[in-house]
Amino acid sequence: MAEKADKTEQAADRPLLTRRRLLGTASAAGAAGLVAGGAAGAFGDRALRERPTALTTVGSAALPFHGSHQAGIADPAQAHGHLLAFDLAPGAGRKAAAALLRRWSATAAALTAGQVPDGDSTGIALDAGPSSLTVTFGFGRSFFDRTGLTARRPAALEPLPAFTQDALDPKRSDGDLWVQIGADDALVAFHALRLLQRQAQDTARLRWQMNGFNRTPGATDRPRTARNLMGQVDGTNNPKPTDSDFAAKVFVPGDHGGADGWMAGGSYAVVRRIRMLLDSWEQLSLARQERVIGRRKSDGAPLSGGTETTPVDLAKTLPDGSLAIAGDAHIRVAAPASNQGAAMLRRAFSYHDGFLDDGAPDAGLLFIAWQADPMKGFVPVQRKLDRGDGLSRFLRHEASGLFAVPGGCAEGEYVGQRLLEG
Amino acid sequence: MAEKADKTEQAADRPLLTRRRLLGTASAAGAAGLVAGGAAGAFGDRALRERPTALTTVGSAALPFHGSHQAGIADPAQAHGHLLAFDLAPGAGRKAAAALLRRWSATAAALTAGQVPDGDSTGIALDAGPSSLTVTFGFGRSFFDRTGLTARRPAALEPLPAFTQDALDPKRSDGDLWVQIGADDALVAFHALRLLQRQAQDTARLRWQMNGFNRTPGATDRPRTARNLMGQVDGTNNPKPTDSDFAAKVFVPGDHGGADGWMAGGSYAVVRRIRMLLDSWEQLSLARQERVIGRRKSDGAPLSGGTETTPVDLAKTLPDGSLAIAGDAHIRVAAPASNQGAAMLRRAFSYHDGFLDDGAPDAGLLFIAWQADPMKGFVPVQRKLDRGDGLSRFLRHEASGLFAVPGGCAEGEYVGQRLLEG
Repeated sequence: MAEKADKTEQAADRPLLTRRRLLGTASAAGAAGLVAGGAAGAFGDRALRERPTALTTVGSAALPFHGSHQAGIADPAQAHGHLLAFDLAPGAGRKAAAALLRRWSATAAALTAGQVPDGDSTGIALDAGPSSLTVTFGFGRSFFDRTGLTARRPAALEPLPAFTQDALDPKRSDGDLWVQIGADDALVAFHALRLLQRQAQDTARLRWQMNGFNRTPGATDRPRTARNLMGQVDGTNNPKPTDSDFAAKVFVPGDHGGADGWMAGGSYAVVRRIRMLLDSWEQLSLARQERVIGRRKSDGAPLSGGTETTPVDLAKTLPDGSLAIAGDAHIRVAAPASNQGAAMLRRAFSYHDGFLDDGAPDAGLLFIAWQADPMKGFVPVQRKLDRGDGLSRFLRHEASGLFAVPGGCAEGEYVGQRLLEG
Repeated sequence: MAEKADKTEQAADRPLLTRRRLLGTASAAGAAGLVAGGAAGAFGDRALRERPTALTTVGSAALPFHGSHQAGIADPAQAHGHLLAFDLAPGAGRKAAAALLRRWSATAAALTAGQVPDGDSTGIALDAGPSSLTVTFGFGRSFFDRTGLTARRPAALEPLPAFTQDALDPKRSDGDLWVQIGADDALVAFHALRLLQRQAQDTARLRWQMNGFNRTPGATDRPRTARNLMGQVDGTNNPKPTDSDFAAKVFVPGDHGGADGWMAGGSYAVVRRIRMLLDSWEQLSLARQERVIGRRKSDGAPLSGGTETTPVDLAKTLPDGSLAIAGDAHIRVAAPASNQGAAMLRRAFSYHDGFLDDGAPDAGLLFIAWQADPMKGFVPVQRKLDRGDGLSRFLRHEASGLFAVPGGCAEGEYVGQRLLEG
């Protein structure tokens, strides 16, 4: 409940998110032309219509698909996430891509409202509410050449620079199209993935896929930030939707013009699969781990004092004259004050895909950074981290992508329409 | 909430489970010598002790580790599951295995009670309640030769017969030791996995690992049975803890004697990784899918009529004279009436590990069947399914294991002690 209340609060500044809906009962939703819980479509004449009981808020929470920005950016990350990249099939160009984005948008709009799209007989998400499902679509650099839209490719889609710590797998990097799915229920998320993948079949082929997770709603009473698999509170210094400069940091201005004017209201997503070297990390004492990060593990408070939300005092010294936040502490090197105010919204999922040949866990962070301009967000911060971050010894960046995520669409439109038909 | 109420109901017949605890506040748990939410141990002197708010029931629900049966068998399957198999390291014998099971049992007892074990500085599950964590330990056939305990190996651990539908990967099958972890929160489950894996380091090596999931509590108001990734209600005909013959079907009798008398109160787990051929399955119409299974997809009611819990009428004919439940329908071939009353408790997790080279989803069911005797449970049913089940065209059994899961232990004891010290 605490988490849900927080979601509403965090979303308060995105006007459309104040329309966050709780689909309380099947009959109430039915009156609006929908049937909650995925009971419509192929299953419309069946017993679920008579379902007497209400979903809890976990299942019934719905985030609107339509709006000035796409969902899945300013909303808190859900308990389950899928990241997918597709490459257009040989011969599929701008027209086929437009048709695909139209199909995808219609499906995403239906699913996020708790409807079953026409003709869906999978039944995977039957009984469940939309469970805060979001679906977010983006375009990779390669998309523009393949669709004859090179002239409208944003300058911000220049390839990311190489970092010395990178060990990137090209097969799990980049891609023409990117889809981010998030939901608080695993079957709701999987259902969306299956339908979108099948709709792509003749037009685009799955290039890579990654599955991630966050805390289950109600598993913790910690109201704000998540923990990652290193046990560290993560995301404390994220811009907040209630900040006056939140939109300026995260979204391309709504009046953005020029060849890439279609990106008005959009954002750029930097996606990094960051494996954590947990065997090494967990050998460190608690005190050493905390010095590497610069925050206490228990509550996320900076080692310069206070609580999690206390501003970090980078100048503070200890009685012995040493810096409270070490010179190579992660939060010092990553701090906006160390990077000309650069900022991005990090909205991550943890991942865990088993173990590697040497027994080490194949686990870490599906890092997703959102910003109005990657050259003023991820790139300068990562350049600095690459050189001086004490944490980088315990991380491997194994995959990378940069995607242009257009603004949201209104009902009857589809995501990317201004690019593909403009 | 509906799901939680149901968990309590299903568990009612296992006496120890009536001790299911809700760790309401840190202070209440602290009075019992524990600190809820994983704040003790290395983090004991930190801010979490002062945490003022209560966890919700998702996080605070706790299942006791100690008891006459191990946890994770009669309890409803959680939202997240990990299955692990270990092989003893060269040179590690009965003594080393005993020491490992003692360490594992102590850790499992602490974690399931919401405590952090001594010396744990991972912090992964900090802030979370135990979230219905269970940890279940078992022994594979190969364990007994390696520990000099061949004479005490149960006859029930004879290798499973080969089935024509099998396409088993030996690297992901069998193993000396088996561990099943379940929790309603992903980080709680991962934390348990990390600690147990690290404790095994010198004694046993990870052989295989599988991750699975079920619905998030509160995502659906369906009170009883789960859906699988084929969209089908699954588990309707499971024995219920309230059935008078539940214990006889699932557990070895408490007065079991002889060379394998150490299995008294235990159970046998058949573990099968069953990939679903979803691309083919989803090509079928809804009506065809329902004929293959023998139940309606929407609500799980048998095609012979009634609701999900109505007994299946295998003899019922339609007006045109054909059988309501087709001759090769899954529920006909699997029905206890078709198998001399054979029964097992299926307690599964879905899995989804991305996609295969041909683009097909690498997804399906981590099928776990619990029974007092596999030769009267899984084996006869699977023999029949192997020959005549219309569903088997859409399934691939890719991994298999059979494990002897001893009875539970009392406080101060460890799981398997009667075998390893008897």
